[in-house]
Amino acid sequence: MAIEPLKSANSLNEECGIFGVWGMPNAAELTFYGLHALQHRGQEGTGIVANNHGHLWQERGLGLLSTVFEDPQKLKNLKGNAALGHVRYATAGSGGVENIQPFMVNFNDMQVALAHNGNITNAKTLRKELEDKGAIFQSSSDTEILLHLIRRSKKATFVEQLKEALNQIHGGFAVLLMTPDGIYAALDPHGYRPFVIGQLPNGAYVATSETAALNAVGARFVRDVQPGELITINDQGMKIDHYTTDTTLNIDSMEYIYFARPDSDIYGVNVHQARKRMGEQLAKEAPANADIVVAVPNSSLSATMGYAEASGLPNEMGLIKNQYIARTFIEPTQERRERAVRMKLSAIPSVLKGKRVVLVDDSIVRGTTSKYIIRMLREAGAKEVHVRIASPAFKYPSFYGIDMQTSKELMAANNSTEEMRKKIGADSLQFLSTEGLVDSIGLQHAGKGNGLTTAYFDGHYPSPIYDYEPELAAKEKTGEITFDPEVGQ
Amino acid sequence: MAIEPLKSANSLNEECGIFGVWGMPNAAELTFYGLHALQHRGQEGTGIVANNHGHLWQERGLGLLSTVFEDPQKLKNLKGNAALGHVRYATAGSGGVENIQPFMVNFNDMQVALAHNGNITNAKTLRKELEDKGAIFQSSSDTEILLHLIRRSKKATFVEQLKEALNQIHGGFAVLLMTPDGIYAALDPHGYRPFVIGQLPNGAYVATSETAALNAVGARFVRDVQPGELITINDQGMKIDHYTTDTTLNIDSMEYIYFARPDSDIYGVNVHQARKRMGEQLAKEAPANADIVVAVPNSSLSATMGYAEASGLPNEMGLIKNQYIARTFIEPTQERRERAVRMKLSAIPSVLKGKRVVLVDDSIVRGTTSKYIIRMLREAGAKEVHVRIASPAFKYPSFYGIDMQTSKELMAANNSTEEMRKKIGADSLQFLSTEGLVDSIGLQHAGKGNGLTTAYFDGHYPSPIYDYEPELAAKEKTGEITFDPEVGQ
Amino acid sequence: MAIEPLKSANSLNEECGIFGVWGMPNAAELTFYGLHALQHRGQEGTGIVANNHGHLWQERGLGLLSTVFEDPQKLKNLKGNAALGHVRYATAGSGGVENIQPFMVNFNDMQVALAHNGNITNAKTLRKELEDKGAIFQSSSDTEILLHLIRRSKKATFVEQLKEALNQIHGGFAVLLMTPDGIYAALDPHGYRPFVIGQLPNGAYVATSETAALNAVGARFVRDVQPGELITINDQGMKIDHYTTDTTLNIDSMEYIYFARPDSDIYGVNVHQARKRMGEQLAKEAPANADIVVAVPNSSLSATMGYAEASGLPNEMGLIKNQYIARTFIEPTQERRERAVRMKLSAIPSVLKGKRVVLVDDSIVRGTTSKYIIRMLREAGAKEVHVRIASPAFKYPSFYGIDMQTSKELMAANNSTEEMRKKIGADSLQFLSTEGLVDSIGLQHAGKGNGLTTAYFDGHYPSPIYDYEPELAAKEKTGEITFDPEVGQ
Amino acid sequence: MAIEPLKSANSLNEECGIFGVWGMPNAAELTFYGLHALQHRGQEGTGIVANNHGHLWQERGLGLLSTVFEDPQKLKNLKGNAALGHVRYATAGSGGVENIQPFMVNFNDMQVALAHNGNITNAKTLRKELEDKGAIFQSSSDTEILLHLIRRSKKATFVEQLKEALNQIHGGFAVLLMTPDGIYAALDPHGYRPFVIGQLPNGAYVATSETAALNAVGARFVRDVQPGELITINDQGMKIDHYTTDTTLNIDSMEYIYFARPDSDIYGVNVHQARKRMGEQLAKEAPANADIVVAVPNSSLSATMGYAEASGLPNEMGLIKNQYIARTFIEPTQERRERAVRMKLSAIPSVLKGKRVVLVDDSIVRGTTSKYIIRMLREAGAKEVHVRIASPAFKYPSFYGIDMQTSKELMAANNSTEEMRKKIGADSLQFLSTEGLVDSIGLQHAGKGNGLTTAYFDGHYPSPIYDYEPELAAKEKTGEITFDPEVGQ
Repeated sequence: MAIEPLKSANSLNEECGIFGVWGMPNAAELTFYGLHALQHRGQEGTGIVANNHGHLWQERGLGLLSTVFEDPQKLKNLKGNAALGHVRYATAGSGGVENIQPFMVNFNDMQVALAHNGNITNAKTLRKELEDKGAIFQSSSDTEILLHLIRRSKKATFVEQLKEALNQIHGGFAVLLMTPDGIYAALDPHGYRPFVIGQLPNGAYVATSETAALNAVGARFVRDVQPGELITINDQGMKIDHYTTDTTLNIDSMEYIYFARPDSDIYGVNVHQARKRMGEQLAKEAPANADIVVAVPNSSLSATMGYAEASGLPNEMGLIKNQYIARTFIEPTQERRERAVRMKLSAIPSVLKGKRVVLVDDSIVRGTTSKYIIRMLREAGAKEVHVRIASPAFKYPSFYGIDMQTSKELMAANNSTEEMRKKIGADSLQFLSTEGLVDSIGLQHAGKGNGLTTAYFDGHYPSPIYDYEPELAAKEKTGEITFDPEVGQ
Repeated sequence: MAIEPLKSANSLNEECGIFGVWGMPNAAELTFYGLHALQHRGQEGTGIVANNHGHLWQERGLGLLSTVFEDPQKLKNLKGNAALGHVRYATAGSGGVENIQPFMVNFNDMQVALAHNGNITNAKTLRKELEDKGAIFQSSSDTEILLHLIRRSKKATFVEQLKEALNQIHGGFAVLLMTPDGIYAALDPHGYRPFVIGQLPNGAYVATSETAALNAVGARFVRDVQPGELITINDQGMKIDHYTTDTTLNIDSMEYIYFARPDSDIYGVNVHQARKRMGEQLAKEAPANADIVVAVPNSSLSATMGYAEASGLPNEMGLIKNQYIARTFIEPTQERRERAVRMKLSAIPSVLKGKRVVLVDDSIVRGTTSKYIIRMLREAGAKEVHVRIASPAFKYPSFYGIDMQTSKELMAANNSTEEMRKKIGADSLQFLSTEGLVDSIGLQHAGKGNGLTTAYFDGHYPSPIYDYEPELAAKEKTGEITFDPEVGQ
Repeated sequence: MAIEPLKSANSLNEECGIFGVWGMPNAAELTFYGLHALQHRGQEGTGIVANNHGHLWQERGLGLLSTVFEDPQKLKNLKGNAALGHVRYATAGSGGVENIQPFMVNFNDMQVALAHNGNITNAKTLRKELEDKGAIFQSSSDTEILLHLIRRSKKATFVEQLKEALNQIHGGFAVLLMTPDGIYAALDPHGYRPFVIGQLPNGAYVATSETAALNAVGARFVRDVQPGELITINDQGMKIDHYTTDTTLNIDSMEYIYFARPDSDIYGVNVHQARKRMGEQLAKEAPANADIVVAVPNSSLSATMGYAEASGLPNEMGLIKNQYIARTFIEPTQERRERAVRMKLSAIPSVLKGKRVVLVDDSIVRGTTSKYIIRMLREAGAKEVHVRIASPAFKYPSFYGIDMQTSKELMAANNSTEEMRKKIGADSLQFLSTEGLVDSIGLQHAGKGNGLTTAYFDGHYPSPIYDYEPELAAKEKTGEITFDPEVGQ
Repeated sequence: MAIEPLKSANSLNEECGIFGVWGMPNAAELTFYGLHALQHRGQEGTGIVANNHGHLWQERGLGLLSTVFEDPQKLKNLKGNAALGHVRYATAGSGGVENIQPFMVNFNDMQVALAHNGNITNAKTLRKELEDKGAIFQSSSDTEILLHLIRRSKKATFVEQLKEALNQIHGGFAVLLMTPDGIYAALDPHGYRPFVIGQLPNGAYVATSETAALNAVGARFVRDVQPGELITINDQGMKIDHYTTDTTLNIDSMEYIYFARPDSDIYGVNVHQARKRMGEQLAKEAPANADIVVAVPNSSLSATMGYAEASGLPNEMGLIKNQYIARTFIEPTQERRERAVRMKLSAIPSVLKGKRVVLVDDSIVRGTTSKYIIRMLREAGAKEVHVRIASPAFKYPSFYGIDMQTSKELMAANNSTEEMRKKIGADSLQFLSTEGLVDSIGLQHAGKGNGLTTAYFDGHYPSPIYDYEPELAAKEKTGEITFDPEVGQ
């Protein structure tokens, strides 16, 4: 894959995976399997909270699920019929175990656990306001803000307190909370993040980030959580409610392009097939005079299938991926990054030798990975390398839950396509159009617009980005970018 | 590690050790050595926060210093000229790393680290009040309360906020705080806990629980922190202030009897020599018709020296202590406790055979250890075992920072001396009188009273115990116990 | 870790990866990268021995490279210009660190390190003979036998001792030894295992299991090690010699089918392309009336490409592989195996729904995995599942270095194809013919025969199997199997 | 304690503790408790082998018992009614887990485990001879030699093979072996190392290094193993035999002086009482004009008691020992050693101020620790420091199982007493005489001589030291030292 997400020390947002289940024996073990299917959404840390007859117990730690739960006793300790879990994405400078979710707080009158996927765009402002009122934050995560807002609400019931709190936060978020009495699932008013409900054979409900996790635990898909909804799952079953009706649908298109698993369906659209259509569309928009099509495993496998079929060129395995991950030991950054690429991918000379190659990738962020891959292809004998990217050029930062909040390192933000081509060393370089992307996904929904967020590519943000707006103020003045809920419609 | 649900109030207090230094290169390493000298005050966990040019960095973990800082890189990471450290006492059911101090909070405008030794007797009430106002607690420790109180103060400066907060908490506490600008040391109005100031050869000031830690880092003793004082140590040197003048001196007598190191001086009285005098006094009050005097190493070595000298009986090494600690594997509690005693202590038959033994110990809490020791002495051939305790019988619980908050398990609270003698299997059993204890310590101070808290023995608590009072209400009505600041005077 | 008592003979063999380099600064780090490219050949343990100015130093441990060398200091400790490394395959019941290679022995006059890939078929006999002469074995590995044989040789030089020893062992083996003076590479007389020589840009020679490891360290391919060769690499360069001339070429066909990496070339034949041709041939031999072709990632990706192209059916991504590995927690074996398959693979319903599927797999051993995969495909909506295996049915055990030494668990050894089809639940099941396999690989070599071992499929073993022969004696009598060096010719 | 044993990279010998039991349920757990009582004899590593119905299973690791068996499962895995255990002393350059005992070897016909305390003085020669005959050594430990010798014996039974092997090795050794059929205990012909037999209440026999371990497991003392004996313990009970009758008794006097626990009896002499008598004798031989006597805890506590009583001077606690062990972080060796002493010991000013102190220590090896202690005493106010050592000056190396095999670092080997006094900074320095030592121990035995080895002090070695003799050849020529079995008689 070509994305190495931009990291900055003050970056609080994250891509993550969440999973919750109510009403199933050994709920923590089921949650473990569900989180395993979401491990691609976060590898920095993971945690599970189980509800044992009204008492919440937690295990969490840094690293992969297989590391944190290496000792089987840990999972055995988490008894009970309901559980909440989280996998956390690696962002620099946020490494402490106190940032690993689910967060859990013990009040004198109740316990609450919280797991969150997304980014709160007015977090900085809210945090300052709360601190000015005496709030103390233990973590550097946005997620803690929601707990403070709930706790400070004067409303009578937990659900009302939660609704009031949800109306105060902005951005992209899929949130799961668990109290001794139930699980609560809420999605932001724009539906930026994927979030689905499933049901197990015994009738128990599951709420999780992707349908792949439903399949992993044998749950059937029930429905997508809708923007602005607040769903309660408890011993009485599932109750669908909403905390706001001022909603639009603006699913983050990067979920289809890169983040979600190919076997997941988001809003009725299978991710693999969407990607394959992107590849087909790309073949139409950007044909190449070449002999073979080569994928960058695993991220562009689907798009490459589509490109090959539509172009009629053979899809050949010119690159293979080492399934094992190991660190590099070289100190200088540049060399280490190249070494890392070479440890992950290998070219097959007998496939590539003398060939004009179409290299299909899902996206270009910094461009360095592309440069190293193209160099490997040429070393293996490729005569020409035509790079085709199955998404539009990535020009604008994201603020709704993906860790790219600055345009400084975005190659496409600072270079023309021709400049990019030269820097990565390709014989030609072309991107999918934004229209082509939207058409390929082909989302069907009742509301206005295409249902997607494509701000990365066209600068049209469906909602204000609050604390981040100063960064983009100059571009807003020129009209290059907009913050407008109607734009995506 | 699993987070337990809400904890009961009687497991929140702790005996601990604290150490802070301002103005010394490699302050964290110095703090490590200082904490090592305080390791006897807490083995459950430890942490150090260093101040690197105004930024606070923390390392903490469960276990001994040697475990938490096994990787030398951890200490190297803690750069800077000021540091704060803490060793935590093992109390049941409070095992999470989130309870390990120093606590550190990051506000948008500042950072604060806090290390605390003692117990806040109105913690439950304050916690509830704070939670009702929206406060969220991460840990089950009392210590967090102080941070919330500071943060909610409307006063203009940190020192004023801190003073206001200190006036709201009750109990026994020695507190060290560090901000980017300085270290702040405060002692409770009764001076329950030991707390001293020292100075390093380069002029830097140190504040810590015991003089033994000053010696360990090559600092000279400057003064004891006085009840009600708030001392600021920063680049301008040391400034002595107070947050209240409504103070008395009531040093916890258990520090002299058991907790503090023999080489520490508390309020000018050396602990070893105080213990030796307790032994001498005990010999006078409770002589025994015996051949030899035997200590329980290491806790009663000093008192045994005094008893032997005053009685004229030879001080013989009838018991030795294994310097290595290892767990037991037997499941049933009773057997395991006996096994644990036998793994720690061994009797020397050639010393004991046929002898009438005076066994001097520092105190009896549950009585089970005494029973096992006496059994060992008899198995090794001792003809008679006369137990002499170098402190009065322990009848009443403690609420000022030692983990004995219920009289249920106190043998002396529920048994006459004769009943105790039978249960532990001694030929005779006698305790030091409270007057003898007070005289042996021989504290000199300008105020009224003897300067000590002896509530464990006589039930006269120098201050109300707030949230714990219901437990003792019945006894207060009969006058068996009192809560009166004048009593210790 | 517990050492098990005496192990049964049928758990001693292993598939492994080896890597050695002489004459390159930071040789251990290079070896690390080389082993990383061979990690697929063994995940149980790994070790590296470095030659620091004539002194050999070793690091080894259980688990993946990333685990064993997690602490970068370990690799830094391994200084010097020559190194030897090994990755070990997980075989049941051989778990001790004393079995992790390279083995290293310190004689009073020299040090020897040894890394081995393969199986010695007369190990049991040799071990008994050696023990009867007083030899003491520390490990349960065959590899140690070679060290004893070398040491007991009366020959004058190390090379002569080694030759004598090599002539005493039978089976399949690629061996690397390192002394302070050089590296020695030897291949068994039948060339069962792949083994290649490469050269780094600075002229240093590398010997390793697969060309993929050469590419990973930037070495150019020089030549395949030939059966019966003993190659010395030292400061004088590379010297090619042989310890026997009684050789044939019988490369283990399973290397092409399953074990080796697709980007490796074995004896001039690229593995990916060989597999693709197997798929093409399979399509010709066993067409299917179907809508789509689906691979089992990653092992059958290449063959599936070939099948799809030759059949004209679309190659669709009906199954995806989770790139993260985590354990299961279910106790009963059967369920756990199914859970494990479901944690590794997911079906994509939108691809499979209503489709007649050709499922191409590389081989069937026990059949249980196939059964679970087919069940998943049907659950995802597949209408028909036609299983096509890109290798012949696996009927006879292997004794030359792959961990299948008994026919008890081989499904094809005990079931007809129709019985297998029913058990795995397929609509149809067909295998590639042995002739088709041999043709697909298309090995070119100067000697007689096809250069391959296909004993698994046809029972014609190119060499006696010594200590294992009693197991197959009955079948030999019926002529069902043969042990004949000429057979493979 | 003043001994920091000399370490050199090539030092193969070690002080260790061994424990074996036959015929007791949960034998491994009992062995754990026994080894815990022997932990002072070795902290580098430990291992236990259990005999589960004829199958031997092993757990071993680096570090203390509490580290190696931190996971209780490890001990639970070691099922069975017989077990063998070992604690290993830390010697530099021998750190691998392959050197941790018990050693265990799996032959095709049997298993043997071996634990050893001592040093084989002809190890180098035997090792070379064995290697010349083809033996391969895995460890750098002498102990492995015995296994090779047993294995190469042509005798018919294991006991006869063992006897033959024992007659080939020289030096000081207490050895325990376990086969599926029994435990075998053998002591060297001079009885250098302590070795005792005990019996549990159920009749099971225990063999171990010290009586302290018998007490720890509730076994009664049966007898000391005699020089040259080979004792078999199996289901038939205990059978006492011998492999040689050419024996003398030369117990290592350092066991009484420093190594053994005070509560152990060696050959009927209690160690604590022997040390106390050394102190008494020292007071007579070397009185001091002083005010108080101060011990170096814990090693000289017994001798100090004796000195104080005999001299009539008060025994005061001028130094206390920190019961927790932590590493230092200072890099330069000199400073680090001083820091280490200061982290271990603290002086009590109020005891020492203005006093003329007799500092009693058990021995002086390098002298640096003494120097730092004296400096601490003076800093704490001691007016004079008179050092009295309760053993003779340590001038000659040891070769029978204590890690001091060179005289280079022995302060007394290279300095006069007056030079030593100046270097350590004492006001006076005196040692116990060798005659005083022998008398204080007062060993009663039937044979000739005093039953002790005092070679460290007088150079009279009771047996040749074989491979080490070249080092001392020059001194032997001058008659300064002798190798003579009769000398100690």
